[in-house]
Amino acid sequence: MPLGEFALIDRFFRGCGAPRPDVTLGVGDDAALLECPAGRQLVAAIDTLVEGTHFPPGCPAASVGHRALAVNLSDLAAMGAEPAWALLALTLPRAEERWLEEFSRGLAALAREFGVALVGGDTTRGPLCATVQILGSVERGTALTRSGGAAGEALYVSGTPGDAAAGLKLEQARLAVADARAARYLRERFLFPSPRVALGRRLRGYASACIDVSDGLLGDAGKLARASGCGVALDYEALPLSQSLLNAVGPELARELALAGGDDYELLFSVPSARAAALLGELPAQEWGYTRIGSLRREPGAVLMRDGSVIDFSHCGFDHFASGR
Amino acid sequence: MPLGEFALIDRFFRGCGAPRPDVTLGVGDDAALLECPAGRQLVAAIDTLVEGTHFPPGCPAASVGHRALAVNLSDLAAMGAEPAWALLALTLPRAEERWLEEFSRGLAALAREFGVALVGGDTTRGPLCATVQILGSVERGTALTRSGGAAGEALYVSGTPGDAAAGLKLEQARLAVADARAARYLRERFLFPSPRVALGRRLRGYASACIDVSDGLLGDAGKLARASGCGVALDYEALPLSQSLLNAVGPELARELALAGGDDYELLFSVPSARAAALLGELPAQEWGYTRIGSLRREPGAVLMRDGSVIDFSHCGFDHFASGR
Repeated sequence: MPLGEFALIDRFFRGCGAPRPDVTLGVGDDAALLECPAGRQLVAAIDTLVEGTHFPPGCPAASVGHRALAVNLSDLAAMGAEPAWALLALTLPRAEERWLEEFSRGLAALAREFGVALVGGDTTRGPLCATVQILGSVERGTALTRSGGAAGEALYVSGTPGDAAAGLKLEQARLAVADARAARYLRERFLFPSPRVALGRRLRGYASACIDVSDGLLGDAGKLARASGCGVALDYEALPLSQSLLNAVGPELARELALAGGDDYELLFSVPSARAAALLGELPAQEWGYTRIGSLRREPGAVLMRDGSVIDFSHCGFDHFASGR
Repeated sequence: MPLGEFALIDRFFRGCGAPRPDVTLGVGDDAALLECPAGRQLVAAIDTLVEGTHFPPGCPAASVGHRALAVNLSDLAAMGAEPAWALLALTLPRAEERWLEEFSRGLAALAREFGVALVGGDTTRGPLCATVQILGSVERGTALTRSGGAAGEALYVSGTPGDAAAGLKLEQARLAVADARAARYLRERFLFPSPRVALGRRLRGYASACIDVSDGLLGDAGKLARASGCGVALDYEALPLSQSLLNAVGPELARELALAGGDDYELLFSVPSARAAALLGELPAQEWGYTRIGSLRREPGAVLMRDGSVIDFSHCGFDHFASGR
């Protein structure tokens, strides 16, 4: 049943997400009117998911809605910011009610979880793609950036990278896994990633630099290091791997997926040695789910170490136009 | 020559647009850091242009860059807001240097004209589409909305609607026009629309309601009227038509394009009778380029009047999923 654009927007996206007193005018006018938070800086990011590039055709609509917001929440998490408002630009080949209902359900559930109001949108006809623009805020001068790291600092990552990349291979039927529970877990990590907003906010005051791991750990570590004017060495043996991933693909492929797989939406952050004890005391690593995986160092570039020697790893991050994504 | 995503972003979009002191961190980190303007409300809008839907394949890249920002500036104009920052999500089938250079040139020129800084972006692989998210601000409590109009108020439109729709037909080779100068003018109105930001800002204090005309005058007038809890009557004879449009298509088709064509990015606004004299005195209609074209009225719906009677006009606005756009 085809619906008009205005009916679509009204039906699925008006009042979507969390109600917020700082939204003076939301979806339905030419633009949204929002109240600026006093004493804070505005934080803004934008990210697009394209069918066939960032998710396989036929991916559950609820996952597309969830991920479109999650990848943006992850950008805000990496800045240590508090998310507030989102705008959605949704391009669809057809106005399919059921798809839209599921999509908006996935987006709305995550928006409510993080207190985000959907305040604007545009629905257009074309090949399926969803762009979310997110706005949030951070106490002035406290935002985490990629560029604050220094040689000698320890590098940590949250979660267990590689799970989402295996989940995507399962979704694409490019991987078969006998262990049904592991397969379900991995697929879930791709379809419904958990942005680390709470961790990002708590890392202010401890971390010197932070980036979200979306394009593969090694490449993103290289980006953080380059922005900080140094290099990075990751410890091959220290990579945190989930039991599901190890069960599903074994230790070699697990590490490859962790290093170059992408879609993790975990946080990678550096901590000066003077702050490390405070971090580990205030935010216990096991409770907050992060692991030390290496160090920033003076020599530029990103290398992988095993038993004290550099090992070859030809992947160097996830480049959309180089890798076909 | 294919370039990596990061090289692309750096090369074409870093430092794009106007430099602004309120941009603490622009393109290149996980998110942008922006300084909130004191005493003002934030104004946010998002709009997408899809190749084949909003512009014909092969459209000049500079025009796609210009229009992607212009349609968003027009949304801010309709709120009476001052634009400040933009984020770009660009999806491309291939990373073509020449196309990107022209696209960014078109976008940057308009951004500089309106003092807008490009502060963030995402470049992805897929069918060509460009989403811009714009942020601006307005003095608290003074924004124009669609809902402030009342029955009896005069309705005005800026510019000469219909020109862009004829320009699009020319671009698509669906219209042949002997008068080369008229054809060039009309094509220009489609390819490089002028968002009415200055007029929108000056209308605060005079207009009771405002909307940008992007989907056709009659449909957009209906939206303003509905949001204001009333209806609207437009005067067929009063529609402002450019000499180029009249020369190109004659008076009948000219009025049809003005009423239902779309892509005008003009402002449509209502003015209470108590403010009309002040408006016309302070912002002379000829100098600011606007024309009275009808009135809001108690009866719901949008009608067209000619010699005192309602005439039939079956189009009722531009609905992307109903009209194939």
